Amino acid sequence: MIPTPYLLYLGHSTDPVGIKTSRGLAVFRRDACVGEFRYDDCPFTLDLPRMTLAEGAAAGARTLVLGIANSGGTMGEDLIADAITALEAGMNVAAGLHQRLRDVPRLAALAQERGLQLFDVRDPPTDLVVGNGYARAGHRLLTVGTDCSVGKMYTTIALTDALRARGVTADFRATGQTGILIAGAGVPVDAVVADFISGAIEQLAPARADGGWDVIEGQGSLYHPSFAGVSTGLLHGAQPEAIVMCDDPVRRHMRGIPGRALPGLKECLEMNLQVARLTSPGVRAVGICLNTSAMELDTARALCEATAAEQGLPCTDPMRFGLEGVIDRLLQ
Amino acid sequence: MIPTPYLLYLGHSTDPVGIKTSRGLAVFRRDACVGEFRYDDCPFTLDLPRMTLAEGAAAGARTLVLGIANSGGTMGEDLIADAITALEAGMNVAAGLHQRLRDVPRLAALAQERGLQLFDVRDPPTDLVVGNGYARAGHRLLTVGTDCSVGKMYTTIALTDALRARGVTADFRATGQTGILIAGAGVPVDAVVADFISGAIEQLAPARADGGWDVIEGQGSLYHPSFAGVSTGLLHGAQPEAIVMCDDPVRRHMRGIPGRALPGLKECLEMNLQVARLTSPGVRAVGICLNTSAMELDTARALCEATAAEQGLPCTDPMRFGLEGVIDRLLQ
Repeated sequence: MIPTPYLLYLGHSTDPVGIKTSRGLAVFRRDACVGEFRYDDCPFTLDLPRMTLAEGAAAGARTLVLGIANSGGTMGEDLIADAITALEAGMNVAAGLHQRLRDVPRLAALAQERGLQLFDVRDPPTDLVVGNGYARAGHRLLTVGTDCSVGKMYTTIALTDALRARGVTADFRATGQTGILIAGAGVPVDAVVADFISGAIEQLAPARADGGWDVIEGQGSLYHPSFAGVSTGLLHGAQPEAIVMCDDPVRRHMRGIPGRALPGLKECLEMNLQVARLTSPGVRAVGICLNTSAMELDTARALCEATAAEQGLPCTDPMRFGLEGVIDRLLQ
Repeated sequence: MIPTPYLLYLGHSTDPVGIKTSRGLAVFRRDACVGEFRYDDCPFTLDLPRMTLAEGAAAGARTLVLGIANSGGTMGEDLIADAITALEAGMNVAAGLHQRLRDVPRLAALAQERGLQLFDVRDPPTDLVVGNGYARAGHRLLTVGTDCSVGKMYTTIALTDALRARGVTADFRATGQTGILIAGAGVPVDAVVADFISGAIEQLAPARADGGWDVIEGQGSLYHPSFAGVSTGLLHGAQPEAIVMCDDPVRRHMRGIPGRALPGLKECLEMNLQVARLTSPGVRAVGICLNTSAMELDTARALCEATAAEQGLPCTDPMRFGLEGVIDRLLQ
């Protein structure tokens, strides 16, 4: 386990979506965070005390979480320099990038010298087997999306909490670095070898017989030209009884791909159901979740109502309006 | 480059599909093969001289190719023991399994001691970037399949040869270990990290402006619950102008998944076109290739004719009846 409390890193980030790991920890593990570290050119705050790396260590932070993401997952010189400063200040360092902390010789050597640890959260399990798609027992829900970074993880955690609030056993199954840091376990599905995508998810959410739900975090989108392979294998491995679709109504283009429009909700839902049927013939959609954080409350509420009417499904922003309608539909 | 000539390994294999790498080399690089090695319980032959490992080395073989595949790609003790014998006899060893030769300490130590090399053909490039799906110049054809191991590689090589025979520039782009051993280059797409599937193919077949074709080897099937993620990313990365679908008409279930039927040709074609349209809106199907090697010639010919009529596409077995109809449709 990664020693807490954390100091959350924002660095020079200017992309609100790029800081999602730090933000996720600030939202869902706030009691485990002592502060945030950012440069003056970073326009964001997580509303935690701003600290230098040395101040964070002095305040008791045991691990600096490099909770920023970039497409491709490489580490710049500035990030490496800050990781060195953190180690010198006595903190462990955790990151979820494709490029591993331990593969940077300066970091590996310094950590060893100081008796500190480097945590590469995106390391996949080493004992994966290929998926088989055979029907397995248990209730599973998967969140899917029109795009990357449209709120699938938030929605998945909120669905887990909402099921528990109804007295239903439910477990959040994390598939990305942020979710894994929050849950303390999971499979970084975008980092497994391609042959093992569906197998990794079959292992993450195996057969269960207690009547409870595995609520599985989706990744990417069937409509994202970079990552649809991951989303496809995830759908097949999850073998979901139900899917919930997530969307960002103000997103102007597919993440990282200027010029490429997001798919329509109906088209995207239909495609996800079609692909999911390969291993879960009875799969059904039970709701749509919109990230309306950039909209006025009334506008957001009206959009959810209009979308619900248009798609014939409960539609909500789980962070603003709860998930009662979706859970009703799920447990119907 | 891997030193030739090769000694081809069949070992204890009893699965005709599992020996496809050795068989592919025997068919397409026959002049580079001095013989085959198999145990008495292996019912197959590649019609090459049968040799012990020591005899192979004495006959001039410079590399033992462990050309057998199994789902999951791990190495058993018998395979490791034979690799040791080969190294002791003075041969290099090549393999395309997920488990790497160099990760077996005994093999790594022995190879170093003897000044020999271990070739792990399934090592992906280390400089991959994520795909972007932007339209790029050039003609690209991709083979797709109803299942794994239904003749996509054979068809891809045959299509490349058939285009060249018409005076059209064409290059075979290999995506699996057998194809890579035959072509001497390629990307083992099922072994790349999941995030990079489509990006790996964009790199394998980049924009070209010479009017020639990249003829790209497909992998898996959109209908295979283990590997559809790979097939999806490959379709998106290939951005194919044309697809050719491959099928094994006597296959009784999806490879490795007893009880799961193969998809129908029409359904499978339609799904491949639908997925491919994300990055290649004008994609079209130009033919169907059947592996009829287990059928009488007349039966095979009748099946191709019936399938062509039913699907409205040229249909052939490229190893028996050539590819004229498919190439005509492609160049129309």
